[in-house]
Amino acid sequence: MTAMRFFSDNAAAVHPAVMEALAAANHVDTAYDGDAISQSLDAAFSDLFETSCEVVWIATGTAANSIILAHFVRPWQGILCYEEAHIEVDECGAPTFYSGGAKLMTLPGAGAKIDAEALKARIAGIRKDVHQVQPAAISITNATEYGLAWRPDEVGEISEIARANGMKLHMDGARFANAVAFAGCSPADVTWRAGVDALSFGFTKNGAMMAEALVFFGGSGGAGVRELKKRGGHLLSKGRFVAAQIRAMLKDDLWLANARAANAGAQALAQACGGRLMHPVEANELFVRLSAEEAADLRALGFDFYDWGEGAARLVTSWDQDAAAVAPLAAAIAAL
Amino acid sequence: MTAMRFFSDNAAAVHPAVMEALAAANHVDTAYDGDAISQSLDAAFSDLFETSCEVVWIATGTAANSIILAHFVRPWQGILCYEEAHIEVDECGAPTFYSGGAKLMTLPGAGAKIDAEALKARIAGIRKDVHQVQPAAISITNATEYGLAWRPDEVGEISEIARANGMKLHMDGARFANAVAFAGCSPADVTWRAGVDALSFGFTKNGAMMAEALVFFGGSGGAGVRELKKRGGHLLSKGRFVAAQIRAMLKDDLWLANARAANAGAQALAQACGGRLMHPVEANELFVRLSAEEAADLRALGFDFYDWGEGAARLVTSWDQDAAAVAPLAAAIAAL
Amino acid sequence: MTAMRFFSDNAAAVHPAVMEALAAANHVDTAYDGDAISQSLDAAFSDLFETSCEVVWIATGTAANSIILAHFVRPWQGILCYEEAHIEVDECGAPTFYSGGAKLMTLPGAGAKIDAEALKARIAGIRKDVHQVQPAAISITNATEYGLAWRPDEVGEISEIARANGMKLHMDGARFANAVAFAGCSPADVTWRAGVDALSFGFTKNGAMMAEALVFFGGSGGAGVRELKKRGGHLLSKGRFVAAQIRAMLKDDLWLANARAANAGAQALAQACGGRLMHPVEANELFVRLSAEEAADLRALGFDFYDWGEGAARLVTSWDQDAAAVAPLAAAIAAL
Amino acid sequence: MTAMRFFSDNAAAVHPAVMEALAAANHVDTAYDGDAISQSLDAAFSDLFETSCEVVWIATGTAANSIILAHFVRPWQGILCYEEAHIEVDECGAPTFYSGGAKLMTLPGAGAKIDAEALKARIAGIRKDVHQVQPAAISITNATEYGLAWRPDEVGEISEIARANGMKLHMDGARFANAVAFAGCSPADVTWRAGVDALSFGFTKNGAMMAEALVFFGGSGGAGVRELKKRGGHLLSKGRFVAAQIRAMLKDDLWLANARAANAGAQALAQACGGRLMHPVEANELFVRLSAEEAADLRALGFDFYDWGEGAARLVTSWDQDAAAVAPLAAAIAAL
Repeated sequence: MTAMRFFSDNAAAVHPAVMEALAAANHVDTAYDGDAISQSLDAAFSDLFETSCEVVWIATGTAANSIILAHFVRPWQGILCYEEAHIEVDECGAPTFYSGGAKLMTLPGAGAKIDAEALKARIAGIRKDVHQVQPAAISITNATEYGLAWRPDEVGEISEIARANGMKLHMDGARFANAVAFAGCSPADVTWRAGVDALSFGFTKNGAMMAEALVFFGGSGGAGVRELKKRGGHLLSKGRFVAAQIRAMLKDDLWLANARAANAGAQALAQACGGRLMHPVEANELFVRLSAEEAADLRALGFDFYDWGEGAARLVTSWDQDAAAVAPLAAAIAAL
Repeated sequence: MTAMRFFSDNAAAVHPAVMEALAAANHVDTAYDGDAISQSLDAAFSDLFETSCEVVWIATGTAANSIILAHFVRPWQGILCYEEAHIEVDECGAPTFYSGGAKLMTLPGAGAKIDAEALKARIAGIRKDVHQVQPAAISITNATEYGLAWRPDEVGEISEIARANGMKLHMDGARFANAVAFAGCSPADVTWRAGVDALSFGFTKNGAMMAEALVFFGGSGGAGVRELKKRGGHLLSKGRFVAAQIRAMLKDDLWLANARAANAGAQALAQACGGRLMHPVEANELFVRLSAEEAADLRALGFDFYDWGEGAARLVTSWDQDAAAVAPLAAAIAAL
Repeated sequence: MTAMRFFSDNAAAVHPAVMEALAAANHVDTAYDGDAISQSLDAAFSDLFETSCEVVWIATGTAANSIILAHFVRPWQGILCYEEAHIEVDECGAPTFYSGGAKLMTLPGAGAKIDAEALKARIAGIRKDVHQVQPAAISITNATEYGLAWRPDEVGEISEIARANGMKLHMDGARFANAVAFAGCSPADVTWRAGVDALSFGFTKNGAMMAEALVFFGGSGGAGVRELKKRGGHLLSKGRFVAAQIRAMLKDDLWLANARAANAGAQALAQACGGRLMHPVEANELFVRLSAEEAADLRALGFDFYDWGEGAARLVTSWDQDAAAVAPLAAAIAAL
Repeated sequence: MTAMRFFSDNAAAVHPAVMEALAAANHVDTAYDGDAISQSLDAAFSDLFETSCEVVWIATGTAANSIILAHFVRPWQGILCYEEAHIEVDECGAPTFYSGGAKLMTLPGAGAKIDAEALKARIAGIRKDVHQVQPAAISITNATEYGLAWRPDEVGEISEIARANGMKLHMDGARFANAVAFAGCSPADVTWRAGVDALSFGFTKNGAMMAEALVFFGGSGGAGVRELKKRGGHLLSKGRFVAAQIRAMLKDDLWLANARAANAGAQALAQACGGRLMHPVEANELFVRLSAEEAADLRALGFDFYDWGEGAARLVTSWDQDAAAVAPLAAAIAAL
């Protein structure tokens, strides 16, 4: 099964270490986030990011993104993002819902990275009056929707624009682990040191069951975040079971090991794909040219993946699909 | 630890059968709700309730209540409920958030059951114009906030008023299992046969990890519920892990066995409390008169529970606290 | 007609001076609030209130109240008010709509003035956690819903509680003119000097056509108010026509003269009502005991007014109904 | 002054007939919309549009558009519109606010008319799942943001797409009068007969003071519209003064006469502009190529207008600016 599933890292199994952590957490008696596991997360992330962090955990990436953005903008303000960002096209309007009405304002960019010049032009084109929605935050995705990893200086270029215009910078890190594993930089370098105010750090796609962290850099996210979490119905009474997943993922850098495995699988497939690649392969997603006939051939062999418009497909590797595990698909593609 | 924890069934451990179901679900590869476990829930609840049901699962009771109510009312309408209902005092305004602004309109009632006469008078007192918020739904809690179980005819009395005024009837069943276990009626009798349109069926307090079901009776809840779930960030990519908890709870009526155990623990404590009881004990909550000194004495022995205003306390038993397990506390109370 | 209409000051005619101001404003060519009339309002109110004021005008009292309150609270917070306050029972949930979901939390009080002790107890009873909605503003109405005028020291008692709890204090002044005319105090004394942060100053009931002012004391209301106004569709392109009404009402204290006339009419009726009065008559509203038969008798004579529950009625005088104008009704009541 | 003001029809004076109607309405005593003038609007519009209409009046076009759209979509749905539509770029997010979060989804189109092929492609490209926002309404503007008038068959082409996809069709008619005056069709032909469900019929830019009508074709707009109006703070207590403006505008087709005058002024300018025109001139707006130097020259002569990006300007004529009135500007442009 593992050798056949390439439609989403969302569908992968939960890592055994996470399952063990859930079993261990079952011996803790405390409601809501009062338990020792939950209480330990601020320190754990502060260590990882080499700065004081305030961390709020939650079950989905959609909720993580929405709550951070709702915290950064008022209902009548806007959020600048890439035109195919997950928050724009795949969250059923959740950021607008949580923020009480904020407008997503979209921008183009190669490889799903917001283009800095387009960003500046867009901001300059907005009249500073009450008739037009004024953006108050920028959201970027790392790894991007097309599987590219942001470099610290690229993030810095965006954050400089954010700062100059009094905006907050959010990073949607549903695949943050894969991006960091590829870029080889420290988590700090590509986030707060480059000007990111808050990160949605995803674990679910990378081996957890349902666990994402809202990481606010620089001490505190400020009042309101926990109210948004509770009001959205995301405060679990047995919250220790989500905190425990995150602890397990952080322990001995399991998050990084898992991401490296998935990335290695992607690289192995990339070699097999050769000229079919539509974007450089950096994290764990491949976008490849594939005719309908070729796609049918691969599916006949049992491989499962999504079409990506006409004549193209998306392949995603997961933490349990390293280079060896993807060999059958690599061979099948090479044989097309 | 089990013998000492009486502050909330939210803090209890997860039942071993649920943990086993999670492990088993880890061998299923599908994202979102496309897996066989998730797909089986409609049929499972339809069997249990002896009618066609549409079921949506979610991680918290706050989200379950809010999404059902948001589905039943428009933003400018109201929701009638008991003045200390969980939706009114313990959900940070979540039903108003999900509904886009609906107003909670509160009513008195003995034992936290809405008083039918007060309900009729309240409805009659609302001018039918655009200046006043018009209620469109009634929400009752079973077991109630004071631990009482609704009887089918009592529910019918409320639903008759709902029907006569074109309103929907919602039941918050965070402790539905405990209520049914006490009342001895069928789940159908106290819900749709008595006029309930939708039920928040809670499993988290009764042995699950994080699992609640929105049960719509009569075939379908109608369009919009799944959009509200996704938009609220409650569509888990590995959703099978919540569905699996619910299947485990339904299997061989584990939900009923767990509730009976907790209720038995509550009855054992009730006998020890005698004249201290402020409400009849029907489900798994006890509200008892207890002086500050007596409370301190019990806490000195290691027992953990909440004060409930001055001179009173709340004791809650969980699925792992049957009559035998609560014997130490029963003895300590008797010895006060 | 004037002698017969007692159901609402909302139904009164527009004062001739206001009509003249509208005609005069028709010779000004500017869109939105860029005209000289609109620009002059900050200074005019700053003079009247003896402090620096920021003023935003709008067409209705519901919008004025809602925008001020939405500006003072975040969506997950609450607003404390009297249990029959206009914002609670007569605005179709507008303050919740504008604030993005804030909860109105109601309190009792004699004559529709919030009881200070009840207010303190209510605040003390709210757990400071994310489960319960935390109030961030208090709203009082002057004159109250039962026609009483707040004295400066009474306002001060409430504002002290607001300050001690980090809350803002709003005054709904739909009948502020009538209250000030009765109390004989300066507008400053009963507002900002007593701790009020913002006032909805109503002119529509007192001789204008559609004109209310949001008055923020102490320099500036802060960012966001004008966005709320525009977003609510309340920024009129020919806004000078509302600003002109307000200027006309302020000129030579027409607002005070009109209120005095209405109050005098109310006092004349009060003498005729004697023991029928249910509340002291201070502004321009009377609540009187009146049997169904008596009410029918008065209506048979042509008088128009609202019943106010069983055996009671509400009489409202307007700026064009001074003591002489109400003589027929006074005589009819005396003759009952 | 009239000869100099070309920056907006929003800045024009109120027509004398409207001023007279306001004076006449001052002799009517009724609150809210219970007066005879307000009650007569349904019939008046039903006559004009040759079908049964339900009409709700309001003070601004932003509110008119937002309430109709909020009535047509649920909070999690979308509204398709032209990428520079007024609702998208000039209303501070009001349609999203009123609808409780609906997403505006933009489309290109020549002359600000939505391109039918682009519309079909956009709809086809939306996955029918809960992850993507599903549009439920289409909004077109007539006259368009670039001053073009929709022909009945063009509207029909859009409405056919709307019907095929279960969507409602809204027409923003802030300058509906100018569009109808140019197209020479009946109001019915370009609205409901072409498939429009509701029209925002603007009068403010065309000689009224503050008056817009929400016109629902086919009998009734359905429940909820008046609640949205009240909840938005748009129910004026002395509402007769807005209804009276609309009656005055409809009387003897003043709306059409005013629009014809403004259009004639625009045509006179169009002749003077010749090759400078960027769009055909159909209604009362001209978009012309004009260097910074030329613009400065015209302004030095006293003419007032907006720049429209670099090297371009917008000229708008009003009801009081017919061909004769604009002669000075026409001459000045010709002399450039």
